Amino acid sequence: MKTRACLFDVFGTTVDWRSSVSRQVAAFLRDKGIQGVDPVEFADEWRKLYQPSMEAVRSGRREWTILDVLHRESLESLLARYGIRGLSDAEADHLNRAWHRLDPWPDVVEGLTRLKARLIIAPCSNGNIALMVNLAKHAGLPWDCILGAETARAYKPLPEAYRAACRHLALAPAEVMMVAAHNGDLKAAKAQGLATAFIARPTEHGTGQRTDLEPDRSCVDVSAGDFVDLAQKLGC
Amino acid sequence: MKTRACLFDVFGTTVDWRSSVSRQVAAFLRDKGIQGVDPVEFADEWRKLYQPSMEAVRSGRREWTILDVLHRESLESLLARYGIRGLSDAEADHLNRAWHRLDPWPDVVEGLTRLKARLIIAPCSNGNIALMVNLAKHAGLPWDCILGAETARAYKPLPEAYRAACRHLALAPAEVMMVAAHNGDLKAAKAQGLATAFIARPTEHGTGQRTDLEPDRSCVDVSAGDFVDLAQKLGC
Repeated sequence: MKTRACLFDVFGTTVDWRSSVSRQVAAFLRDKGIQGVDPVEFADEWRKLYQPSMEAVRSGRREWTILDVLHRESLESLLARYGIRGLSDAEADHLNRAWHRLDPWPDVVEGLTRLKARLIIAPCSNGNIALMVNLAKHAGLPWDCILGAETARAYKPLPEAYRAACRHLALAPAEVMMVAAHNGDLKAAKAQGLATAFIARPTEHGTGQRTDLEPDRSCVDVSAGDFVDLAQKLGC
Repeated sequence: MKTRACLFDVFGTTVDWRSSVSRQVAAFLRDKGIQGVDPVEFADEWRKLYQPSMEAVRSGRREWTILDVLHRESLESLLARYGIRGLSDAEADHLNRAWHRLDPWPDVVEGLTRLKARLIIAPCSNGNIALMVNLAKHAGLPWDCILGAETARAYKPLPEAYRAACRHLALAPAEVMMVAAHNGDLKAAKAQGLATAFIARPTEHGTGQRTDLEPDRSCVDVSAGDFVDLAQKLGC
């Protein structure tokens, strides 16, 4: 079937969360005069709490909760662990919204703009709607609409996260291509009948990255070097 | 409070549904060689079934159902009433999707583009996500995201339709302005604490229109001649 829409993973695939968050953490630490905390380690530790926080929701142990709230709880626990005290609510909220101000990889805006001319493009991220909207404004991402965890009320890689996105576009899964730098995401999308495209982001986790360097051929239909290459390969 | 986002009614306010639907109905009738049916009357009769079809959902008599399905049921009943038989499912679906191919009023794209530079812009329509996405592609509407009945699972003018849109943007109602050519929509938005803007669309229902020619000052904060005038008045 012809591809009518591309859905994009965002954190890592579309935007460079690690550099962007660590840069904002560094600015925060400098403003507060806090020394002895490595901002890159802080960003990595924050990200390590991401999957466990969503797992509480996925498993049903916790009712539906958006990512901004999970990020904020993870931040509070990290601040306590690092002994950082005395932030106002507005300061903690601003720091938490570092995830709303992530920079795109350099190929993204050009690639999305080309894809948009012929296809529907939307994020299918675990980020909530406000996070995705603010991020799109910050990064210049020209989405046609915002889909993902909040519209599905399900976190990837649960089947409903992918199925709801197709249903909301009134498209068959085979008409929709999931684009991600993570084979696990693509494997879950493929299991729901979506087409898949792997984008290599070999420095998402820094220069020593060992995971997701190559597409898993058992679940990947298209492999591209970046979003511009993907547009080229899809004839856009 | 400062306006951070504008939500737009779509049918009538952003797009000229009556001219667009009747033109497509005329083309359908011509293709099928059907005579004796007035396409403008057909469009008006189709629209007359809109509110009753949603009322079944609003009242709770019927479970949540998207507008594409309600439009299709209304179309089937109209076709029967006009004695038009023998359409394939694909033909009926194509005709039903006339609502996905509506033309914007001439000021809309320029006005939205100016507003988008400083504010979040999104539809808050009773149309479902796929309808809104396809309409935006057709009409060149540069929305930041698609909000409205399907993301709220509530049809306007129910309070939840407006409240969910603000919640999904993580904004206070007072930071959000509802823009519509219908005083009833603005009255319902104002009751939920949103700011409101009235846009005059005096020919939505044709040249003899008698309703919504003037803003209802009891619920309207800003009145503008069109979307470009609105952008001007909001300093965009």
